[in-house]
Amino acid sequence: MASRKLPILVVAGHLTVGLPSGTGGATARLFAKNGYRVAVLARNAGQLNTFVESIKADGGDAAPFPVENYTHDSMRATFGSIRTAWPDSEIRAAVWNAGAGIFKTFLDVTEDDIKQSLNTNVIGAFAFARETILAFKEVEPNELGKRGTLIFTGATAALRGNVWTSAFAAGKHGLRALSQSLAKEFGKENIHVAHSIIDGLIRTDHGDQVKTANPSGALNPDSIAKAYLGLASQDSSAFTWELDLRPAHEKW
Amino acid sequence: MASRKLPILVVAGHLTVGLPSGTGGATARLFAKNGYRVAVLARNAGQLNTFVESIKADGGDAAPFPVENYTHDSMRATFGSIRTAWPDSEIRAAVWNAGAGIFKTFLDVTEDDIKQSLNTNVIGAFAFARETILAFKEVEPNELGKRGTLIFTGATAALRGNVWTSAFAAGKHGLRALSQSLAKEFGKENIHVAHSIIDGLIRTDHGDQVKTANPSGALNPDSIAKAYLGLASQDSSAFTWELDLRPAHEKW
Amino acid sequence: MASRKLPILVVAGHLTVGLPSGTGGATARLFAKNGYRVAVLARNAGQLNTFVESIKADGGDAAPFPVENYTHDSMRATFGSIRTAWPDSEIRAAVWNAGAGIFKTFLDVTEDDIKQSLNTNVIGAFAFARETILAFKEVEPNELGKRGTLIFTGATAALRGNVWTSAFAAGKHGLRALSQSLAKEFGKENIHVAHSIIDGLIRTDHGDQVKTANPSGALNPDSIAKAYLGLASQDSSAFTWELDLRPAHEKW
Amino acid sequence: MASRKLPILVVAGHLTVGLPSGTGGATARLFAKNGYRVAVLARNAGQLNTFVESIKADGGDAAPFPVENYTHDSMRATFGSIRTAWPDSEIRAAVWNAGAGIFKTFLDVTEDDIKQSLNTNVIGAFAFARETILAFKEVEPNELGKRGTLIFTGATAALRGNVWTSAFAAGKHGLRALSQSLAKEFGKENIHVAHSIIDGLIRTDHGDQVKTANPSGALNPDSIAKAYLGLASQDSSAFTWELDLRPAHEKW
Repeated sequence: MASRKLPILVVAGHLTVGLPSGTGGATARLFAKNGYRVAVLARNAGQLNTFVESIKADGGDAAPFPVENYTHDSMRATFGSIRTAWPDSEIRAAVWNAGAGIFKTFLDVTEDDIKQSLNTNVIGAFAFARETILAFKEVEPNELGKRGTLIFTGATAALRGNVWTSAFAAGKHGLRALSQSLAKEFGKENIHVAHSIIDGLIRTDHGDQVKTANPSGALNPDSIAKAYLGLASQDSSAFTWELDLRPAHEKW
Repeated sequence: MASRKLPILVVAGHLTVGLPSGTGGATARLFAKNGYRVAVLARNAGQLNTFVESIKADGGDAAPFPVENYTHDSMRATFGSIRTAWPDSEIRAAVWNAGAGIFKTFLDVTEDDIKQSLNTNVIGAFAFARETILAFKEVEPNELGKRGTLIFTGATAALRGNVWTSAFAAGKHGLRALSQSLAKEFGKENIHVAHSIIDGLIRTDHGDQVKTANPSGALNPDSIAKAYLGLASQDSSAFTWELDLRPAHEKW
Repeated sequence: MASRKLPILVVAGHLTVGLPSGTGGATARLFAKNGYRVAVLARNAGQLNTFVESIKADGGDAAPFPVENYTHDSMRATFGSIRTAWPDSEIRAAVWNAGAGIFKTFLDVTEDDIKQSLNTNVIGAFAFARETILAFKEVEPNELGKRGTLIFTGATAALRGNVWTSAFAAGKHGLRALSQSLAKEFGKENIHVAHSIIDGLIRTDHGDQVKTANPSGALNPDSIAKAYLGLASQDSSAFTWELDLRPAHEKW
Repeated sequence: MASRKLPILVVAGHLTVGLPSGTGGATARLFAKNGYRVAVLARNAGQLNTFVESIKADGGDAAPFPVENYTHDSMRATFGSIRTAWPDSEIRAAVWNAGAGIFKTFLDVTEDDIKQSLNTNVIGAFAFARETILAFKEVEPNELGKRGTLIFTGATAALRGNVWTSAFAAGKHGLRALSQSLAKEFGKENIHVAHSIIDGLIRTDHGDQVKTANPSGALNPDSIAKAYLGLASQDSSAFTWELDLRPAHEKW
């Protein structure tokens, strides 16, 4: 009954943040180790290729999909390319990890800042969600009783506006609203939509820094990825829409 | 110590909804009766003039400010016009009542729908808030210890995304985030920012309909206006950021 | 149609906090000035009498109802006494202002602390609410379309648990849940139930202290009372269940 | 560096609900399969013994700890017995799954109902949490950087009061407040406290019923247990305080 086709994860990274660090990179690596083909979306083709090669070197399967932006047209074309690249596979998971933060006092926020926050955090997420939902609707529920899992990476600013975060919080609140609307609308079609609240700094250190840093003081991207794999592994009797993730030593 | 200048209310209405019905119209009338000069912002110049004349006929003072949109440029120009029109008065209250609802299942939501929701609910609100805050910063605290009161009209969709409301909820969530950021940033400058959750239908009936309708079944715009005047009358020892308003018979 | 009988406010004060300062005292005074007969519930009979006399000296009408505790039996008897004292009047408003705070790190919280917090914040509130709802159900909707208004005084600890507040927050969360259940169940019977989030210190200063204190730095009980009178004045088309109240300069 | 001692899970079940069905039973079984010794707390000694034997038959290790109630004295004694029973092991996880629901319209709720709800949902949870925290403070962080994981099973009624749920919601709100206070206070000591929102019916069917039931229509206790094992497996860089769990087809 369960599909014999390989599952695909589509992960949308920050357009300008370098891989392989960060949540997107860690998620791609972990899902690749767990049997997913991984389609990585980001802007810098050179970095993308290097990252994809590193996954393959570890025995995983991945392919780069450079994108200039997250408009509806761009997403439609990209998801079409993914289908073409792997005709014998099925999109079963998607992680939206895009959206840059803007931290300014209110009177310093420009009209462009607001538009940028809404473009990356909300409009792009709508486009990505649309293509993901359409892909999930093409396939039958798997052995977990689900067609697929769509995860949005959120932030504390999704729950509270604060000084410095007016533009960022507006975007992250909007993204959270989208995720809840989708979870309610598509749960009955066995599509799982989730939203994470990342409450703390994400570790971006490398090499020797890692050895000296307090492991309870910042989020390890690999630990976020593990939580996301846990979400993708939930069966249809117990879906989580929202969970928070924060370092043990975070003050909140 | 208290200012001798007359206070001005600036009220931003739905651009396409006819006055005098609705929350904007009711708020304008009630504040006019309570000593405010009222600057009414909306698109249809003809309707605006008629509405303003009706306030004057009741002994109030009001002026129409036709606007084509709520961009930053448009708001800057409009607030400039208000200052020019009433040089002996001070902007002390502002009500943002704009933003049209979009109710569609997710796959029917177009890229334009999302942009429209974000433009009217979020980007316009940022522009309106910016000019309001700048105006409040020009004046000293009044006898209530406050420079001014800025009220945003929200909705249930500001708290929860739902089937049919993905685009609308994204906008209303963003507006709520903005209001909370502003309340936190400018409270210490004695500026009061509030957000209302309108949870129910607003009565738009007229004439004979009013006599037969269930007064506990839908929101009377005059009752919303009364709550807004209450917010504007709070002193600096006890500001309300958020309150909900719903008909007694609403199921929630 | 509207009742000719005088309205009664029942206000339940902290059992051990001295009147006339505090929210309970201020609410009693303000409602008395606005035509309510006021039944004041608290423990210290001597203080109660002095306070009630001060309201009468200002031209208001009030009576003391000493209570030893807020059990169901005690509340049933007390509401019976109120009816007997003023047979020509009707209970139309009630304010629950009881419940002392407990601030201890978790391991210092004793079993008695928890029980005390739950007794005063939750069990007592259930008893008070029961008698209030029963009294409201005896009368017809007034000219505002409502049978009566029941207001619970809450706190920030009703929304968030925190270090130092485990026992207090458990009680205040429970009180908030009660208020929401009641608002949903009895709205359709035109009974208005509200909950306030008091987010900040309440001023208890007197005399010269008042002149030097920052009026934007702590809550003035008279301003809380004004908000409560505003809630009692809402008509059945627009009930507020919850509002927050905080000083302009509060960091939140 | 990591401890060589075996980890113990302490699971507090509903006092009157039969094992092995339900969340407590499923959690005990799953943790036993994953290397935990399991201390099962519940009232019926006969059922407890049978259940514990079934875990042993599957190759796990468990022991019954009959309790009459969840008072502080009872919990202190019980945790003492656990230490005595397994001196070479360490308490590393605890799941609070007790607390019966009360569903009545408000005027049918008795004083006893409220006390019962608060006793089982709040006071018992404080006692259980106290002993758990004290046990965790005795041990060093493990290879995940954590001393232990304490999970409270919550419900939708922890987030919203509703008609029928005044007493139940008061208790569940209180439990949630406790869990958040603990998470904030003890995170800095590398103790992980979590709270689940169970939003839907839990499957209690057996045998043939299982084959015909809609697997997306109710929560499978095994799926809840899997989420709890996921929480216990989170490292100290990314703790989840709260997650919701609901069937895919649940309307919410």
